[in-house]
Amino acid sequence: MVFFCSWIHRFRSSSKPIYTNLINSFSRKLPTNQAVGSENIQKPFAKSFLPLALALILDCLLLISKSKSFGGKGSTDYVVKGSHKEVPQELIQELKAICKDNMTMDYDERYFHGKPQNSLHKATNIPDVIVFPRSEEEVSKIVTSCNKHKVPIVPYGGATSIEGHTLSPNGGVCIDMSLMTRVKSLNVKDMDVVVEPGIGWMELNEYLEPYGLFFPLDPGPGATIGGMCATRCSGSLAVRYGTMRENVINLKVVLANGEVVKTGSRARKSAAGYDLTRLMIGSEGTLGVITEVTLRLQKIPQYSVVAMCNFPTIKDAAEVAIATMHSGIQVSRVELLDEVQVRALNLANGKNLPEVPTLMFEFIGTEAYSREQTLIVQKIALEHNGTDFVFAEDPEAKKELWKIRKEALWACFAMQPNFEAMITDVCVPLSRLAELISRSKQELDSSSLVCTVIAHAGDGNFHTVILFDPNQEKQRKEAERLNHFMVHTALDMEGTCTGEHGVGTGKMKYLEKELGMEALRTMKRIKTALDPNGIMNPGKLIPPHVCL
Amino acid sequence: MVFFCSWIHRFRSSSKPIYTNLINSFSRKLPTNQAVGSENIQKPFAKSFLPLALALILDCLLLISKSKSFGGKGSTDYVVKGSHKEVPQELIQELKAICKDNMTMDYDERYFHGKPQNSLHKATNIPDVIVFPRSEEEVSKIVTSCNKHKVPIVPYGGATSIEGHTLSPNGGVCIDMSLMTRVKSLNVKDMDVVVEPGIGWMELNEYLEPYGLFFPLDPGPGATIGGMCATRCSGSLAVRYGTMRENVINLKVVLANGEVVKTGSRARKSAAGYDLTRLMIGSEGTLGVITEVTLRLQKIPQYSVVAMCNFPTIKDAAEVAIATMHSGIQVSRVELLDEVQVRALNLANGKNLPEVPTLMFEFIGTEAYSREQTLIVQKIALEHNGTDFVFAEDPEAKKELWKIRKEALWACFAMQPNFEAMITDVCVPLSRLAELISRSKQELDSSSLVCTVIAHAGDGNFHTVILFDPNQEKQRKEAERLNHFMVHTALDMEGTCTGEHGVGTGKMKYLEKELGMEALRTMKRIKTALDPNGIMNPGKLIPPHVCL
Repeated sequence: MVFFCSWIHRFRSSSKPIYTNLINSFSRKLPTNQAVGSENIQKPFAKSFLPLALALILDCLLLISKSKSFGGKGSTDYVVKGSHKEVPQELIQELKAICKDNMTMDYDERYFHGKPQNSLHKATNIPDVIVFPRSEEEVSKIVTSCNKHKVPIVPYGGATSIEGHTLSPNGGVCIDMSLMTRVKSLNVKDMDVVVEPGIGWMELNEYLEPYGLFFPLDPGPGATIGGMCATRCSGSLAVRYGTMRENVINLKVVLANGEVVKTGSRARKSAAGYDLTRLMIGSEGTLGVITEVTLRLQKIPQYSVVAMCNFPTIKDAAEVAIATMHSGIQVSRVELLDEVQVRALNLANGKNLPEVPTLMFEFIGTEAYSREQTLIVQKIALEHNGTDFVFAEDPEAKKELWKIRKEALWACFAMQPNFEAMITDVCVPLSRLAELISRSKQELDSSSLVCTVIAHAGDGNFHTVILFDPNQEKQRKEAERLNHFMVHTALDMEGTCTGEHGVGTGKMKYLEKELGMEALRTMKRIKTALDPNGIMNPGKLIPPHVCL
Repeated sequence: MVFFCSWIHRFRSSSKPIYTNLINSFSRKLPTNQAVGSENIQKPFAKSFLPLALALILDCLLLISKSKSFGGKGSTDYVVKGSHKEVPQELIQELKAICKDNMTMDYDERYFHGKPQNSLHKATNIPDVIVFPRSEEEVSKIVTSCNKHKVPIVPYGGATSIEGHTLSPNGGVCIDMSLMTRVKSLNVKDMDVVVEPGIGWMELNEYLEPYGLFFPLDPGPGATIGGMCATRCSGSLAVRYGTMRENVINLKVVLANGEVVKTGSRARKSAAGYDLTRLMIGSEGTLGVITEVTLRLQKIPQYSVVAMCNFPTIKDAAEVAIATMHSGIQVSRVELLDEVQVRALNLANGKNLPEVPTLMFEFIGTEAYSREQTLIVQKIALEHNGTDFVFAEDPEAKKELWKIRKEALWACFAMQPNFEAMITDVCVPLSRLAELISRSKQELDSSSLVCTVIAHAGDGNFHTVILFDPNQEKQRKEAERLNHFMVHTALDMEGTCTGEHGVGTGKMKYLEKELGMEALRTMKRIKTALDPNGIMNPGKLIPPHVCL
């Protein structure tokens, strides 16, 4: 495991944000039949990086082959155990008939799909079969067959999940959506787009740019739209545009019985029955496989101001973020970084930013309005010991600054290239953010581990990256202790254990404290009603001790 | 029935927007024990109108007593039939033990609760018992008892629903939430508030005003927060702030088995498990009784520009609304009225507005930004044959204009005081709105009935008020034909049969065309899992022909 991780780290430090896509594009069987009649987004993208991909492929395969043991070292908290039943030959034959060449039982491929790429979560099993469906119809047939044989299914998108969503603790069939990347229709006048779930948000935005539109969710590079729906993700722009919950118009989903459900019309708002769209968003593949997504788009703003401001303490920085939100200013980004995170960014990017608590702002709209908002927030910052704003002036400088911020996780590995990262994700009511960050920071600073703080401060959502040596059990335990501390502190403040990363296997243990057993029983009742055989992504989201 | 309706019409024309609250405050038993330890919002409100209420009470009772026949005239489409089983004496005794004096079996009270106030929907039965719980605990006990005896429950808020949500086609127990109106906590720094479901949105905003905050949903006057959650309502400000879906942080809900479920934390965003909050919003009391709501609040804007603009055709007006949205302008309201609706407003309010298709705009933010947005939209309007903008200058004039708009329904009755109204509620992708309105308008204009058009044009949501003589079967049929025409036209445009009013009994027949049988079966599976005895608001939302 260590080898694979360290390879990823090396890769991260060379061509960080694209590494997930690269892995996707070279480490699996190539599709024999691309869907025709519509634009395939991933193809040109993968193509442009082909030389690099080919150069790295041998390295990848070599390192994967060295790391085939499962379970191994590590806290049991992060190793998901599951019983495993052999997949019946009859099912294999049915899947072959459906998927033709687009399936594999190759060990390396199964191994690769058995471990999320950016996560310390592991499982004691890996999938038995990987299928690469090309259409909703194929997904429906695959799921119908698996349901008939009561074999588990794990939907698989960009695999950038941090909480173990794509683990296959019971083996079974992994449905890799990477061949379903079409833009099915772009409705410029309605500012919406209908896509297949395997398309990445970055590729989608490349496609949309010429139309003056964009999709305003920006999770980790490599994330796909389907996975983003499944985990109810958000990102730095959620403070302005909301999360996936607010930005999906409707879905098509294949349920456990193989039925294809359309969750809503294409109208922007509707009161027509239960909100199946929102039920599916954040259900982490435990209720169905998403096969089509209609997304709400935004106009690319005509103007933006991007600025940074430094503070003597992280509490000052957090207070300014809170005061900015209270002012009624519709900031489009307000990101907080502590001095350790800035140091990491400097190290990884050859920058020389002041290594002190920092806020990064973006104001958008007309030029006059962006500037007016900036002046108001500058005044707020001054009242809280902030320095003068430093502006990113030209479009390239602005883009670079957000790129650096987006790759903060990889930057952390520049400080400790052979370490793993525990990434936390709590979110609290806004008024509690400064206190939560202060208390957490105190705990992090007094720890022996290197920890950085990054917050989507306008939403009350903050992350820490806790670096630890995976070979040092004591360090792993300390990382876990810090995570527990922050989660419980957030829950005591009426917050949540996960603002945007999802439950997966990692956060199940906190749900009862957060929501109560009644809510969990309700979730289990819904799960059982829609997936009576329990085949859909088993072992995720609903804690195993919940009984009906 | 006619007498009661005509009384409402008379009442409407005298003191329109408050009539629902007045009815609520005098036509039911007064609570014996108000909840203590927190502010009761409805009390001072009701008190201030007490003299008027007392003056009207005799009139009300007299007219109600004249109209006790059910079913009667009218299309069978709008008369909901249901079997009725006598409520067991044991349940009555249990309810008495829970609710003490806060329950009634008085016929007038049951009759009153058996007919939604603004709706042409009727049922062949009325509730057998009305209970007025004072706490979540009481609601839980009531529901537990009803579930034990398998007796239907109908939750009852402001009763302003248009689609028959509060009908009791199978009799049973009506749970009137009008004694649960407390503000449980206001968190100014988090910009959220925790309330009981019986509080009205208008009363809540009165309470919030001194804090510089408001709740940005504005459905019909008299609507309560609980009912607004249940129907996933919106209103004129949804174009800026979203619907109830986007503005509720969490709920507490009593399920059919009596369990109290907390659907989420108080964090603004969370990825912690299935989105039970959104599942309950829009479930119309068929999954549970809402007992507590945490709402997201907004700052009262520091400045606003309110303007009207006239157009030669309704298509021009619709095109301007669409172009405004495409421009990226964050308009806070863009309401469209046809010439008939303007005539109604003039008649009811003694105004002299030009009786032509009209757009009403609101732009908010800083003064400079509001004015900048106004200039951009003025330019768009000019390009589409719009007149110069006419501005409401002072705060009182602005308030009056929105009040007139809000009371548009009552204004329609000024044209035909003894008629009933069929109110339609379709919503389509924005690019189709102009075409839909044009086609509908053509159909409406060539009808013998008086019809007005009001649209939340920025959302693609539009209503028509079709006035008809309830004694003329031919007129009723014609109103139904027009409604069908608009719904089917909207569905053919990938729209929805209900943008904000909900399904109730009125829109069930369109859901299969809109969503497909697979989605309806999924809803039924969820319903059955959470309410196996089918006691929660039976006969609503899920069409009876949906089988598992």
